[in-house]
Formats: sequence, structure tokens, C-alpha cells
Amino acid sequence: MNEKNIENIRHSLSHIMTMAVLELYPNAGLGVGPVIENGFYQDYDLSEKISEDILPRLEQRMKELVKENIAFEQYSMDVDKALDFYKDDEYKTALITDLQEAGETEVSFYKSGNFENLCKGPHVATTKEIDRRAFALTKIAGAYWRGDEKNKMLTRIYGVAFENKEALKNYLAMVEEAKKRDHRKLGKELDLFAFSDLVGAGLPLFTPKGTIIRNELQQALLDAGKEYGMQPVTIPHIAKRKLYETSGHADKFGDELIKVVSHYDEFVMKPVNCPHHTQIYASRPRSYRDLPLRYIESTMQYRDEKPGEIAGLTRVRAITCDDGHTFCTGEQIKTEVANLCKIIETFYTGLGLYGKHWVSLSVRDSKNPDGYIGKTEDWDMAESMLEEMAKELKLDAKRVEGEAAIYGPKIDFMFEDSLGREWQLATVQLDFNMPKRFGLVYTDNEGKESTPVMIHRAILGSYERFMAVLIEHFAGAFPLWLSPVQVHVIPVSTEKHLAGAKDLAKELQNAGVRVEVDEADETVGKKIRKAATQKAPYILVVGEKELSGEDLCIRKRGTEEQENVSKKEFIEKVQKEISEKVAW
Amino acid sequence: MNEKNIENIRHSLSHIMTMAVLELYPNAGLGVGPVIENGFYQDYDLSEKISEDILPRLEQRMKELVKENIAFEQYSMDVDKALDFYKDDEYKTALITDLQEAGETEVSFYKSGNFENLCKGPHVATTKEIDRRAFALTKIAGAYWRGDEKNKMLTRIYGVAFENKEALKNYLAMVEEAKKRDHRKLGKELDLFAFSDLVGAGLPLFTPKGTIIRNELQQALLDAGKEYGMQPVTIPHIAKRKLYETSGHADKFGDELIKVVSHYDEFVMKPVNCPHHTQIYASRPRSYRDLPLRYIESTMQYRDEKPGEIAGLTRVRAITCDDGHTFCTGEQIKTEVANLCKIIETFYTGLGLYGKHWVSLSVRDSKNPDGYIGKTEDWDMAESMLEEMAKELKLDAKRVEGEAAIYGPKIDFMFEDSLGREWQLATVQLDFNMPKRFGLVYTDNEGKESTPVMIHRAILGSYERFMAVLIEHFAGAFPLWLSPVQVHVIPVSTEKHLAGAKDLAKELQNAGVRVEVDEADETVGKKIRKAATQKAPYILVVGEKELSGEDLCIRKRGTEEQENVSKKEFIEKVQKEISEKVAW
Repeated sequence: MNEKNIENIRHSLSHIMTMAVLELYPNAGLGVGPVIENGFYQDYDLSEKISEDILPRLEQRMKELVKENIAFEQYSMDVDKALDFYKDDEYKTALITDLQEAGETEVSFYKSGNFENLCKGPHVATTKEIDRRAFALTKIAGAYWRGDEKNKMLTRIYGVAFENKEALKNYLAMVEEAKKRDHRKLGKELDLFAFSDLVGAGLPLFTPKGTIIRNELQQALLDAGKEYGMQPVTIPHIAKRKLYETSGHADKFGDELIKVVSHYDEFVMKPVNCPHHTQIYASRPRSYRDLPLRYIESTMQYRDEKPGEIAGLTRVRAITCDDGHTFCTGEQIKTEVANLCKIIETFYTGLGLYGKHWVSLSVRDSKNPDGYIGKTEDWDMAESMLEEMAKELKLDAKRVEGEAAIYGPKIDFMFEDSLGREWQLATVQLDFNMPKRFGLVYTDNEGKESTPVMIHRAILGSYERFMAVLIEHFAGAFPLWLSPVQVHVIPVSTEKHLAGAKDLAKELQNAGVRVEVDEADETVGKKIRKAATQKAPYILVVGEKELSGEDLCIRKRGTEEQENVSKKEFIEKVQKEISEKVAW
Repeated sequence: MNEKNIENIRHSLSHIMTMAVLELYPNAGLGVGPVIENGFYQDYDLSEKISEDILPRLEQRMKELVKENIAFEQYSMDVDKALDFYKDDEYKTALITDLQEAGETEVSFYKSGNFENLCKGPHVATTKEIDRRAFALTKIAGAYWRGDEKNKMLTRIYGVAFENKEALKNYLAMVEEAKKRDHRKLGKELDLFAFSDLVGAGLPLFTPKGTIIRNELQQALLDAGKEYGMQPVTIPHIAKRKLYETSGHADKFGDELIKVVSHYDEFVMKPVNCPHHTQIYASRPRSYRDLPLRYIESTMQYRDEKPGEIAGLTRVRAITCDDGHTFCTGEQIKTEVANLCKIIETFYTGLGLYGKHWVSLSVRDSKNPDGYIGKTEDWDMAESMLEEMAKELKLDAKRVEGEAAIYGPKIDFMFEDSLGREWQLATVQLDFNMPKRFGLVYTDNEGKESTPVMIHRAILGSYERFMAVLIEHFAGAFPLWLSPVQVHVIPVSTEKHLAGAKDLAKELQNAGVRVEVDEADETVGKKIRKAATQKAPYILVVGEKELSGEDLCIRKRGTEEQENVSKKEFIEKVQKEISEKVAW
């Protein structure tokens, strides 16, 4: 079944659902009812508030309707006639008026059974095309008419639909699994981050364990970049508004720039880091001998997100960017981009994600060439340069029109997580524009002033979003090198073996391993079950035998068997797995 | 000579200076003229703008006056009479009115020669007490009458004075040396940090080299703290105003809190970090088994400093604190404070500063016991506890009244730099108050709710101020472990030896050493002189001989001699000196 057909099915099910709703609420007003990812929804103006208890009943009725093999028939009506016909229906009137204002003279309707609805289609020919076992109603939510909170709150009913029963089952299982892996839930259980009403929404506080993950990721980025001359720099979180007027961000962000009320200057919170980095470049004269200069930084930037859009770590107000800007000559672009791709490979290999990705060569929208800043010849050169490099580096890049940044084309890396969801994470972007705006120059090898090229790049994007992705991808069971607690030590008896367990922990700590000792006075069984929920890669239960110098008994996360190895062997094994970032 | 006498000398010289000024400007109005550190000043309302060219002439005349052995005689005058007598002198009238408003009925004057001045004294008996070779006039600056920019700008003449010629000479030499070491000057020469008009005053940008120093300091703090269970956490730079209303900082900072204009919440930029850290503590239930919790963080906080008060790195608007808060039980305070003192010892030993310090036991002002928050019995306990610990730890602490924090007593470490200047850097502070304000609790070993104690601590204070101190203390010649460039490699001939020099640099880099290769096509002599100004600890000049495998020729900073050692030996030596933080 192709994409088109499944969309027709979803759209038709939205009408069938409305038929079922109207049987219960004949006077329900109808808002919009589009196809969405995996399903559909429809907004209703009902006389009462309904709960999700109603969904099975509606679903059952829909199955019956589908079985009746109802046909979908289209017909058209003159706009004015339609407006007159529906003059008592405020929703239809508004929707038809929109179409009229957009220049339409006729509007389309679909009839199924005795239900007629304003609808552009397309639909299935008859409900025979729909598999009754392959759809489900999933939830009810409130939604303002036209998305405007000044309007009436309507009732939105969501459904999902697939081509067959198997696909629905897989989807529902994935949703169930995603719920279990929800980073907000696991973040709390594993004590990785917290929110405080006093601090404010969208402003995560990273606990010691969450900070270990952040710092390990940062160190991995530094390590991967060192070989290629990446140099950390440090900038503040505010700047004068003028900085962003110069860069163009003041125009772009407008009202979304967060003002900072100083008594002395007009400051804003930085929404991006590139303008600050240009000012380090500009702080002294530069020669071609100094280039490339490769500034990198993990730094927080701020966005005034709407309270309703804030969600866990995926949408926050304090965003820690793994940001970086390389300033180089035109001839150096190729090597620099290639090196950045190597850094991306090294970093994602350490997470077991490299290979599960595709690369987008994101270029201008050829139908809207005016939506970009800079000269056409610069763009042509940059796009063909990136395309050539993508070929040379065997990135197998897919050319995607309209996905370029406003200042230049880019290469985006899309990674797939263990639930099959796709995330745009790494990006390498060419920019011929900002260096000019800031008047950046270098003296070239003939003694003349030239403008450097700027390469914006992020390897993991934002730490917050990346951590959300990793937590859900690994279901909290991080690779050894990233685990906040790498070895969980459990004394058999708190009374007899705690001191020895602590000595062992100290020894492991001195060897560079992160260890936690369970000091609670509980049964070994309970302590092992507790440790398992904390997802430490290794659990060591230590009693008389182990503390007397005999082999340690190692429980490796995710396996049933236990392994006996000497302490020395175990320490060496763990050290090796950490330093080599062995995937689990 | 005691402190009192030198103050009399300085004060008397201020009068003598005015006698000399009045000879040139008989109608000069007289503002204030106090004794200050190392000297004195006097404000004059002159008919014209004068330049510092006049200083030698004034100084010469002062020496003549001092030689005349002029006597200082005091007399008093009834306030009303004085006001009438000086009714044409706006400055005297204002100053006498102040005294009258403060309740004085008589005012004091001093007469020296034919010069009479409103003055409380004391002074020398005669100028015989003043060493003519031990004072100097140093500079002229503008100063608003009463420090208010709405008033007239007066002319302030500064002088310095000491008990003898030797002391003046030492002081002037120190000033000269301090100018050479000025961190703003060296920061530019060594490319450590920069400022940008577009970013704003007081907002430093740390270059790659400056960031290396920051990061090395941060790593040294982490290393020193690891053994004692310090755990890095991560917080954002803004919070709701309510957080500081709860902590009490909103009251304390008032108008100085920097507002952040969000469309959705009332945010401010954090002026301190403790309230955020309390919220990590509060994010889950805590038991006595979890304590102590020791959160540390190097994070920027913001203060709305006046433009006129901003200076280099010593007074900035974005302040990176090496902050930390330990939450513990009352019984744990002692060990925790002792461990913090050990961390301070380790850290400052690595900078060669430990030993050149004294410790202040900063307690309440017994004359003003109401200026503090919290119960008297908590204060008594905390102060005696700190005193006891200071004794046990042999800190040789000096009890200083009135220097406690508003929420508790503290131990402050004052370090002396190579110019003999004293800096308050490390601090350990007890706080029984903030945990209560935030309602922090833990379940004690009897299952009851208890309030933890909070220990605020900073090891280096602010990174910006600390870097300013270090740059000036070391005159930019940092210890090896802290040097942005540890080995400076100079090829004898760029044409013949550059490739070999780069290979050698790579080898050193792989061994964890920071290296820079001079690629300029200049003479070896010039390259060595250039390298010396960059103050790399080691300079390696490499030519045919060195690249053929013979011993390397090492130039160590600050010594004349050159040493020949094998490459292997050199690498091992450098690695050892770095890891042991050998002082230079």
C-alpha cells in the first residue's frame, strides 16, 4: 500500500468517526479534521465535556460503519450558495469564508452515508478499503478553535490507523515502549535532572548523575575534536542588542529576543553563539598563517519558549549548545568539512549510533531563491562544494531542497533511535555572510585583506535534547563510559561486609571507575533488584569469599549469567571498555 | 614609626600641598582632602584645568615648605561663627553645615604658617617630623564635588608619603612593576581574553589560550575535590524572582537584581548560585544516609556593575564562580570544613601560593549583633566550632570581628602575591539559615525530619578576578601545568626544518603537552626573542642536529643556560612536571 492510500484511509476514518459522534451528539459543531502522522483527528463543539471512556464505544460503532461498506462521493457547490446553505453553522461559515477569501469560487464536499462534510478529499472509494482491525481511537484533548486561546475550546478526538493489523500492533507497542522510556520518567527514576517551580519551567537543574553524562559527552566531543585543532573558548550569556542587529538575528528573532534590564546598557540574552565568536576572531589582526581558527564551546543560550511548548528536556528555555565556528579560507573549507565529518563519525560510533543514519545535503529551495542571504555565485559554489565533498566522503547524501540555513547550505546527519524514530542531530553549515556583516578580515599571502569563510557546526546539537534522545534510545541503560554509576557494589551483609565493600569501591575509584556502594540494611535480593532499576552496567555482590581475595562475581547488565574474574582482571577490563567507549 | 604617625605625616602633607597650590591659585576652593592608602589627596576648585606637568613644581615647593619646619596648631570655633566667617566659601559652608547637622557645636581648624583649614586633625607637631625625600605627588584626576556627577568637577591631586626614602623607593618600584604586570596589558599581549564594544563592557571573551587557563584551574579544583566527594552539578543562569524572594537575596540586592523580560514569567539573572543548588537538594526526599551532599559548579552569575566601576577582569558583569554548597548534618560540619581546608591547601600548593597566606576567622560584629540572620545559639555554636577547627587544623587564624557573612561565620584565606598585595580568595562559610528558608529537610536516623546545615565555599572565588591575580602575580609566566603553550618549538630554517618541527610538535601533543610551532620566516634570534615575550616555559630550537635524532637543546624560561637531553627524557620530564604541578 502506498503513502497516498493510507492517507485516504486515515482521512476517511476521520469522517467515519464523525458519523459515530453525530449519532451521540447530533448537534455537534465540526472544526477541522486533518490527517496527521500515524492517524487523524477531528475537533468537535460538543454540548458537554466527554471523557476517554467514550472511545471504545465510538471505536466499536466505527467498526460497524466500516463493515457497512459505505461509499465516499464528492460534489461541489458554489461558494455563495454554500455560505447561504450553512449560514447557521458558525464553523462551516468560517471555513468556507476562508476559501472564498483565498479566491475559490466553488467548494468541495464529501458524502458518506447520510453524512455530508466540507472536504477537499481525497478519500477511499468505499470503506471496503479499510482494515477494521487496523485502527484505534487513542485520546481526547482540548483544542482552541483556530488555535487561538481567545476562542472557544473544542474537543479533539485522536485516532491512529494503518494498512493492516500488524502495523497497528507494532505502532501501539512502540508507543507503549516509548512511554516506558519517556526521558522525563527515567530522568526522575535515575536522578538525572529535576525541575523546580521556584526556578521556573523549561530551566532544568542537572543533578550530579545528570552532570556526569553531560560532562562525559562534552569530554568525548573535546577528545574527538582535539586531533583536528578544535579550541575551546568562553563567552558570557548576554550581549548588547547591537551585536544581534549587526548579525541579523535581531531581525530574525524580533520579539523573541529576551531583553535584560541593566541600568546602563541595552542587553539581551544570547539566542545563538556565533556573533560572540566573531568578536574573539575580531579581537586581533589575523593572517592567513593563523587560519583555520576553530572555536568550540558548550554554552547555554536562551529562548523565550511558550509555557505550553515546554516539554521535559526536548524543549527548554536554557539550551546548552555544543556550538563551534571555524574561520578559514575558501581553499580550506574542504579539509575542514571532511574533518568535522570524521569527528561526527568518531563521536557517534562511541554511542553505537553511527551507521544508523542518513545524511541530508540541505540546499536552497529552487522555487524560492530569494529567501536567502548572500550572493548567488557564493551559494552555487558552496552547494557544489558540499555535494562534491559528500561524494568524496561517501556520505551517500540525499539532496533536500529548501532545507538550507538562511546564510548557506549544510550537511545534516539524521540518526535513528532504537524505536525507529529519526532525529536531526549533527550539522555542518557553510556561511559566507556573517563574516562580511562583522567586517572580519585576514591578510592573505599576498598581503591583501580577505574575508574568511565561517563554518557553523554542532556535533550533538543541544545537550538537553541529546540527553532526552539518549535516555529514550538506551532506556536509561547507558554504555559503560557514559553511565553515571559504572559499578554498583552490594555487600552481602551490611554489618559484616560494608567496610570491605567500601575499600573495594575506593580501589575502583582510584582506577578511574565510578562506583556506588549500597549501604542499606536490606536483603541481597532486594539490593540486586534495586540496583537493576538503576541500570549500572556491572553489579558486584561482595561477601566473605570475595573480600578474602577470591575471584569477584560479576553481574553484567542485560545478561543472566555471572562471571568470576580476579579483581585485577576486572579493573583492567572496565578501564579498557571505558577508554575504548565499547558499545553495550 | 607607627601607623598613627605615618597617617599624621600624610595628612599634614595634604595641607602643605594646599599651601603650595594656594601660592599659584590664591582663590582655589577646597573640597575634601583625606589620608588614603599609601598617601593622601586634596580636591581643588581651580579657575583652570591643570596638567600633571605642574606636579614637579608643586613637589619642589612642598619640600621647601617642609624644610621651614612649619608648626601645626589647632583651634576651635563656634559653628555659627564659623558659618558666618566662611559665608563666601561654598565648600567650607557645606562642610561646616554637615558638621552642624551631625550635632557639632564647635568645629576644629588647623593652622600651618599662614594657612588655616577646617580640619579635625591630627597632624604632626611640626614638619620636622616629615622626611622630605619620602613623599611624591603622583597624579591628577577629576572628581565630582561630593562624588555626585550632577555637581561641579573638581581637580584632585594625589600624593604618596612614607616614613623614609627607602619605603618610598620600594613603593614606587612596586607601582612600576605592577604597571608592567597589569593583567589588562598582559592579557592582550598573551592573547588570553578580549573585550568587544558590540558585546559590552564588563563581559570578557576568553580566547583559546585564556580558556586553557580557566579549564586547567577548573580541572585542578575538580581533581582536588574528587577525593572528598565533591560532585559537579549544572544550573541555568536565570530563575524566577520568587527564588530570590525566598532566599532573601531579592531584599539584599533590591534594584541591582538584573531583570529578564520574558513574555511569560518574571525572571532575573542569578546574582548567586546557592538558591539553585538548594533546589537540586529539594528535588527528592533525602535521608541521613545521603548526607553529606556536596554540589560544586563553575558557573557564571551576573551583576549590574556601573560602567565606571568595571575594570579588566577584576570587576566584571559576568562572574564565573567556583561555587559549591555542602548539605550535611551538624555532626558532619567538622569533617567537611577540614576537608575543604585540605582542598584549599592542595590547590594553592599547585600555584606556589600556600604558605604565603593568613587565615581570618570572620565572626559577628559584637557591637552590632542585630545585623545578622539566625538564632544567637546557632551563631555561638558555629563560631566556636569554626574556632576550634581552626585550632585543630593549625590554621593560625586571626579572629576578625564584623567580617562574618550575613547568614553565618566563615574562614577566609588571604593570599599574598609577588608584589606583596593581599587578596581574599578562598572562603568556607557556615549557614544555618538558608536551608530553613527553603524548607530543606532530611530524615534522620530516628526517622524524624531534620534541617541540614549548608556550607558555602569557594576555593578560588571568581575565575575572572583569580586570573587577574595570577597574571599579575606570575607576570604572565605561569607554572608549566597552567601555561597555555608549554613548549614553543622554533625551526632554525623554516624551509628546511619546519616539517620536522611539526612532527616533533605532534609527538609532544600526543604525549599531552601543549605546543606551538613558530612558522614565521624570520631569523632564529628574532623567533627566540618573540617566544620569550610569550613566556612559554620551554623553548626548543630545532635544526639539522636535533632532527637527526641527537639530543634536544632545551631553553628553560627564566634561566640563561641551555640543557641537552634526549627527546624521550624531555617528554618524561615535562609530563612529570605537569602532573605533579611543579612550581616554577
